[in-house]
Amino acid sequence: MSEPSYETLQWHVDADGIATITLHRPDELNAFTVTMADELEAAFVQAATDDAVRAVVVTGSGRAFCAGMDLNAPGNVFGLDETQRPTPADVRERFDEPEIRDGVRDTGGRVTLAIHACPKPVIAAINGPAVGIGATMTLAMDVRMASTKARIGFVFGKLGIVPEACSTWFLPRIVGLPTALELLYSADILDADTALGHGLVRSVHEPDELLGAAYELARKFTRDRSPAAVALTKQLAYRNSAAPHPLDAHLSDSLAMFYTSIGDGKEGVAAFLEKRAPRFTGSASDLPEIFG
Amino acid sequence: MSEPSYETLQWHVDADGIATITLHRPDELNAFTVTMADELEAAFVQAATDDAVRAVVVTGSGRAFCAGMDLNAPGNVFGLDETQRPTPADVRERFDEPEIRDGVRDTGGRVTLAIHACPKPVIAAINGPAVGIGATMTLAMDVRMASTKARIGFVFGKLGIVPEACSTWFLPRIVGLPTALELLYSADILDADTALGHGLVRSVHEPDELLGAAYELARKFTRDRSPAAVALTKQLAYRNSAAPHPLDAHLSDSLAMFYTSIGDGKEGVAAFLEKRAPRFTGSASDLPEIFG
Amino acid sequence: MSEPSYETLQWHVDADGIATITLHRPDELNAFTVTMADELEAAFVQAATDDAVRAVVVTGSGRAFCAGMDLNAPGNVFGLDETQRPTPADVRERFDEPEIRDGVRDTGGRVTLAIHACPKPVIAAINGPAVGIGATMTLAMDVRMASTKARIGFVFGKLGIVPEACSTWFLPRIVGLPTALELLYSADILDADTALGHGLVRSVHEPDELLGAAYELARKFTRDRSPAAVALTKQLAYRNSAAPHPLDAHLSDSLAMFYTSIGDGKEGVAAFLEKRAPRFTGSASDLPEIFG
Repeated sequence: MSEPSYETLQWHVDADGIATITLHRPDELNAFTVTMADELEAAFVQAATDDAVRAVVVTGSGRAFCAGMDLNAPGNVFGLDETQRPTPADVRERFDEPEIRDGVRDTGGRVTLAIHACPKPVIAAINGPAVGIGATMTLAMDVRMASTKARIGFVFGKLGIVPEACSTWFLPRIVGLPTALELLYSADILDADTALGHGLVRSVHEPDELLGAAYELARKFTRDRSPAAVALTKQLAYRNSAAPHPLDAHLSDSLAMFYTSIGDGKEGVAAFLEKRAPRFTGSASDLPEIFG
Repeated sequence: MSEPSYETLQWHVDADGIATITLHRPDELNAFTVTMADELEAAFVQAATDDAVRAVVVTGSGRAFCAGMDLNAPGNVFGLDETQRPTPADVRERFDEPEIRDGVRDTGGRVTLAIHACPKPVIAAINGPAVGIGATMTLAMDVRMASTKARIGFVFGKLGIVPEACSTWFLPRIVGLPTALELLYSADILDADTALGHGLVRSVHEPDELLGAAYELARKFTRDRSPAAVALTKQLAYRNSAAPHPLDAHLSDSLAMFYTSIGDGKEGVAAFLEKRAPRFTGSASDLPEIFG
Repeated sequence: MSEPSYETLQWHVDADGIATITLHRPDELNAFTVTMADELEAAFVQAATDDAVRAVVVTGSGRAFCAGMDLNAPGNVFGLDETQRPTPADVRERFDEPEIRDGVRDTGGRVTLAIHACPKPVIAAINGPAVGIGATMTLAMDVRMASTKARIGFVFGKLGIVPEACSTWFLPRIVGLPTALELLYSADILDADTALGHGLVRSVHEPDELLGAAYELARKFTRDRSPAAVALTKQLAYRNSAAPHPLDAHLSDSLAMFYTSIGDGKEGVAAFLEKRAPRFTGSASDLPEIFG
């Protein structure tokens, strides 16, 4: 595919298939705009559908990761129509109608749902301040790694608004419910070591070593791996971690095991027994349906 | 509103809107009775509906927090009718009929459901022994802080009964499923540091510093905060932490963000940009419906 | 009941009612076969239905716990029919038909569902390597204890296949979602201390002390306990930890408390007040239905 071009992002794919998405409004600390939301959504669709992409690393240009919603940009937050009184049924039933999609649905949530739907490992390399949507967008990524200069804040409470971008789904699953509640109530900005102590980030790195460590992990997740098996593993982990009963997992992992066993699993076991690198042919863009 | 008066509780609201509910049967180590259950339910309805209340701190009078069900009080545990054979359908369909409500439904659960429904931060200040329902009632609170003299025990197993008060919903979300299983199977009584190590309490304090620390945290959660946004944040965190898919969070947080953005969010952002304290007008007693 | 006899397992019940199931193919590092799956399923049905069994400890014969699927055994992995294209509806609706049960449904999942359904505490004593299904089968057990020689690996990714045995339901509930994702993506083999750091195992023991520690914990969970109350506690913890709302827990724990209160709870409270050991009569094989 041709390299996509974005106004607020940089996109690069290396020889190992690791895509880097760089939030790129460095003069505004990579503050989030509606254009950035549209472009992130498009970039994650690109990452999802391009078989050459094996994993994604997200970082920020300059000294910030993302300073949150750009409160000075037109159309952000204040574009809402006060005469509307949308109901839960409106959002559910008129989900894709322009009035609801653009006028009611949360912009950050469009981005995190696209990240969540990407069938490849996604790693946040949090190089500096990550505040508001800059913090919540990382929660939909599979791994968060931080520079010592990272500062992470779910600051919504200070602005009279609520946490968004599906963060109340992700955050309790990452740090546990009590810590999630306290981070949201307090609206504190955490330094990297505090974030590490809460399990909010996986590891803390010197600033000039952060991206290298992220790429190393991305390669570990993808080298000699079946993209189809990785994609199904991601689906299984998120869906079944929130399913009511182990039987739900049995229904879906049975199918995933069936299809990978008649697919890349044959090659994987043969390579293992022959002590050689496997040559997988499955792709993440052509997966069986495993959830009923 | 007039100050409510209780037989087994003390109720006080300070100038910052922090309500203190003190379990007050000090000669019986604040042991739990049906009267205390009724009064706790009423007190949390009071806390929920009185806009002057911004957060709640729960503690015990004297040297205990709550020594559990008062096994000597009439009508506790043994009031059950052995000729009944209630079924799951009975409990679900006849939920509010006196025979089920008073004769079958768990008394502790009435209390924890009232705590859970209170749209304000609730902090347990566990000043001493908290055993049985004295332990499980704290699980429905958002934060647990302990004195060095706290002792916490889910002792049901020693009595041939099961954990109640919805504790099997809350406990695994607080300490994780493996630790929850072990605490319930072992029925051990934990000291404060062990509870801290399991994440069962957030912090441990000298006895004479516990309440001060609880009030400080309660003020941090409420000062310069929109009560409406705090209430919606609490709803979102609990509901979406248990929802099957991030899309569920998107449906509800979109609505919560919409309503706070046309409400207190405008003032919050203006105050932030003008570097002044916000003047919020929303209330927790008049919230939009955000769950479909 | 007569002692069951197995080809790939050893079964022993001690005087305290602690059953030990020993995976017993020591020359093959206790590698998993279809016969072992059938026998584990039968052994856990035996453990579930025999009232003399109060808890179960699972360990391995010789130096390994279980080296995973025996890739050299006929019928393992490769018995699948490539002409089938099963759908989620097939698995759900034709669950017990031979074509789906034997040809599509995951063998490991049959085992972990049987472990999960056993209404008694189950403890894994991981004495050595536990890889693939050798690792995932332990996730359905309530407690994991490790020898210093334990090595635990969710190695599916290296073989081009997916994690099975309902592991994507259990693992995130044990180690949290981010660690679960990283363990599955990396396919690393963990030593005992690393597993302890992740919360994957509860404790690490010298090799010759592992089984003793497991039996001590099993006795603690069962001595002077009501088997009926223990069984209901296990059901409540797993089901309600995955339920959408505390109200779901209230419906089921109210019934469990009702039935234990008119049953072993009377004796438990009397024994407590009389400071003597209780004499419980309830059994795990005759439980009330508490979930609607």
